[in-house]
Formats: sequence, structure tokens, C-alpha cells
Amino acid sequence: MISVVVLGAGNVGSHLVKTLQRAKNINLVQWYSRDKNSIKSGPKDIELCHNLNNIKNADIYIIAVTDKAIEALSKKLPFENRLVVHTSGNIPLKKIDIKHKRGVFYPLQTFSKTSDLEFSEVPFCIETMRKEDSNQLITLANYMGSPSYMINTEQRQALHLSAVFVNNFSNQLYRIAHELSDHKSVNFDILKPLILETAKKVQFTSPYNAQTGPAKRNDQGTINYHLRTLESHPDFQEIYKQLTNSIKITHGLKKL
Amino acid sequence: MISVVVLGAGNVGSHLVKTLQRAKNINLVQWYSRDKNSIKSGPKDIELCHNLNNIKNADIYIIAVTDKAIEALSKKLPFENRLVVHTSGNIPLKKIDIKHKRGVFYPLQTFSKTSDLEFSEVPFCIETMRKEDSNQLITLANYMGSPSYMINTEQRQALHLSAVFVNNFSNQLYRIAHELSDHKSVNFDILKPLILETAKKVQFTSPYNAQTGPAKRNDQGTINYHLRTLESHPDFQEIYKQLTNSIKITHGLKKL
Repeated sequence: MISVVVLGAGNVGSHLVKTLQRAKNINLVQWYSRDKNSIKSGPKDIELCHNLNNIKNADIYIIAVTDKAIEALSKKLPFENRLVVHTSGNIPLKKIDIKHKRGVFYPLQTFSKTSDLEFSEVPFCIETMRKEDSNQLITLANYMGSPSYMINTEQRQALHLSAVFVNNFSNQLYRIAHELSDHKSVNFDILKPLILETAKKVQFTSPYNAQTGPAKRNDQGTINYHLRTLESHPDFQEIYKQLTNSIKITHGLKKL
Repeated sequence: MISVVVLGAGNVGSHLVKTLQRAKNINLVQWYSRDKNSIKSGPKDIELCHNLNNIKNADIYIIAVTDKAIEALSKKLPFENRLVVHTSGNIPLKKIDIKHKRGVFYPLQTFSKTSDLEFSEVPFCIETMRKEDSNQLITLANYMGSPSYMINTEQRQALHLSAVFVNNFSNQLYRIAHELSDHKSVNFDILKPLILETAKKVQFTSPYNAQTGPAKRNDQGTINYHLRTLESHPDFQEIYKQLTNSIKITHGLKKL
């Protein structure tokens, strides 16, 4: 049995609490949030805590607050020599106060408050100072049904940057497609199966091998036609140019 | 019962043949390809045809060849006044020879020769000159288990352009993430659940509402950190800048 306290009531904190509470072999001792009102509709039978002086003993303290608040919160914790981890993709492990056994437990996923997520689809990136602490975090991930990987700070930051590309930027491409189709009164639903299939394809094929389309075929006629179509959207046109060039460079059709 | 001849042995032609052959109420009369060697491992019990003079009678002829070859092939067909459709996203309906009943039957999906695809996930964009022809194409899509939409040439071209954004360009973002993670010896597998979840999210939420991340939060600290990390990849850095700006414009954090 591993006992856990979660600190923070944002998306990540809320999803963690839900899953930790359901998991066998995990005892969710407390859920801390600074602001009493931030936990509106928490799961039942959880002890809420709004005062750090009332925090109870546990094997692992998971800090799930905004990047800027991690360092200060770790300092304020009124104990030492216990395992304290943060969940950020970008913050070095050493930002956690040195009085603790320090670690990182970074879930590489996109969380929204409204939709549930299977934690089998949430890989955890684990980093610790001491071997026995990483073993405990691996076990914790395992109890949650999640895969886990040993990832150092530099690797984690590369993953966080990569996540911006595959998540935020892909989503913005969906948004652009939504605008383009709306503009011609076309139902965006028509594009949804293609969006899903594009993501499914790279689960088994490398993105390099999965590539198709005018840039990959070096079909300059279609590319020019698309660029003309985008003349009224200079920002979309620029993105089209950049990504077309990037595909050509990747596939040896153009030099960097 | 609808009888069909498929012309062309590329990805689209091959997938169509497989599905048409399996479908109830569809009689796949022939599969035409100019080159005898282009159909290597076709399904059994299909009559192959390599000479246009031997093409048989059918309700619908589906031309699934490269964009450039559509017009010429439609001219060469040794009959007239039958329903002839192409499957291209970008070619106007009127490029099909006027001697035919003309139509478009454009599957908005990404096809690869190696992997099978459920046709329930392949929406068909239908355009015809005559109402009764579109009814027949809607029935054909229905027999294949596919959704269908009435889409004119201008709308279809907007969809084709949108498809480049959500498919080719998203895939290139996956490729960039693959390069960035490889560069730090990080397993690309860690990013795969996030890629899938990003695509799943917009099946039920608009891309506008699904957006998260440093650009959406206007978190200039993280953005600057990422831009510095990308200094050794000026092309990726430029794409990062463009898409970050695009997100900021979409969410009212910056003017166009």
C-alpha cells in the first residue's frame, strides 16, 4: 500500500485524485488546495486540506500546481526528508526544496476538467535523486495502470517541447482547417475521421513513412494552387509555406 | 444491386476494390489498370482488365487515378451517357469528358496500401450534374457503410486544402517531435498516447475549446525557453514562432 497526498486542484491534480482514489493498493490521504473554493465538486470521501500545517504523513507528496508556484510550495511544506515530486514538464527536479527527497512524476498527456481519461493512456516520466524513490514512483504508476519511463530533466524538457508540437500545434492546424471549412459552409465533421486516422497511423508507422500529400510528392501545381487559395489568409499561407518546406527537407526534396 | 467498375490501381483504387467486393448489394464488375503489373496481389474472383476496349457495362465507373490523368482517361472511355465519377479532392467535376454523366466521389481519408481501413470512417464527398446521379452515389456510399455529404467543387477544394493541414502538416509536426526526442535519446513511444488523445479530443470539442499550452496561456517565459532550445533547428524554430503566433491570434492575445 502506498499513501499519497495530492497538492493542487487544477486539471492534473483533479485527474490524479480521481484515479488515485479508485486505484487498489493506494491510500489517498489528503487533497490540499490553498483556496477553499478551488475544489468545487471533488469526489466523496476525500479529506480536503487548505492549511499546510494540517498536512498528514504520507509516502509520496505530489505537487500539481503551476510551474511558478512549485519551488515556493515545496519550501513551505512543514516537514523534511519525505518524497516530494512535481508533475511539470519543464521545471528541473532541483527546484524542489533540498530538504525533501526530490522527484518528478510528469504525466505526458493533455487533461481537460470535463472529460475522463484512461490512465493506461497516460505515460509518466519519472526522475529522482535516489534509486529507491524511483522504484516507488514506478510502483505508483503501475498501481494507476500507467506506463512509466525513467527520464532525466533535459530529456523531459525535450518531451515537453515535443508535446507542444504534437498537441498544441496540431490542434491549431485543426483550428485552421475549421476556419477554412466554415468559410465555405462545409461541415467540420467531415474532417474528423481523417484527423483521427492521421493520429492512429503513427501508432504503428513512423511519421516519416506515414507522410503523403502534395509536399511529399513534390506536386508544385497543387502547392501553388493552395497558396493562391490562401492569399486572403496571409498567416495561414505562411504556415502552409513553412510546413511544406519542412516536409520537402525531411524527404530530401529541398536543402535546409 | 449497383454494378461498378473501378479504374486505377493506386491506394484509393485498391481500397475501393477491397471494400466494394465485400459489400452486399454491390456487383464489382471489373478492375481496370493500364499496366498489367500494377495489380500485384489483388483480391480473388475479380475480373481484371487492361484494355479499355474490353470494359463492360456498369452503373458507375469510378476513376481512381492521379489528378493529371483523369481528364484523358475519361475521354478515352469507349462509351457515353453513363455515370463516370472521379475520386480527387482537387479536380473540378467538369474535367470529366462531357459525353458522360459526370460526378465526383471523393473519399476524405488517408489511405496506405499496407493497412486496412474501416469504410465507416471514410466520408464521401459527392457532386453530380444531375440529382438522380447523386442519389445513386449516396446509395453506393451507404452500401459501403460510409457517410456521405453533398459538396460542390469549391467546397471540395477547401476540404482538400484543410486535409493538407490536418493530415500532412500534423504528421510533419509528429515528425519534428520524433526528431527532437530522438536527439535526446528519448523513446518516441512516450508521445503516442498524447498524439492520439489530441485527435480524439476534437471529435467532441471544437479545436478552439480544446487548445491548451504556453501560447494559449500567453506564457512568454516558456515560449522564450522553447525558442532558445530550438536555436540549433532554425526551421523548427520558425514553425514554432508561426504556430505560437497563430494560436495567440485565434485566442485574441495578439492582432493579425
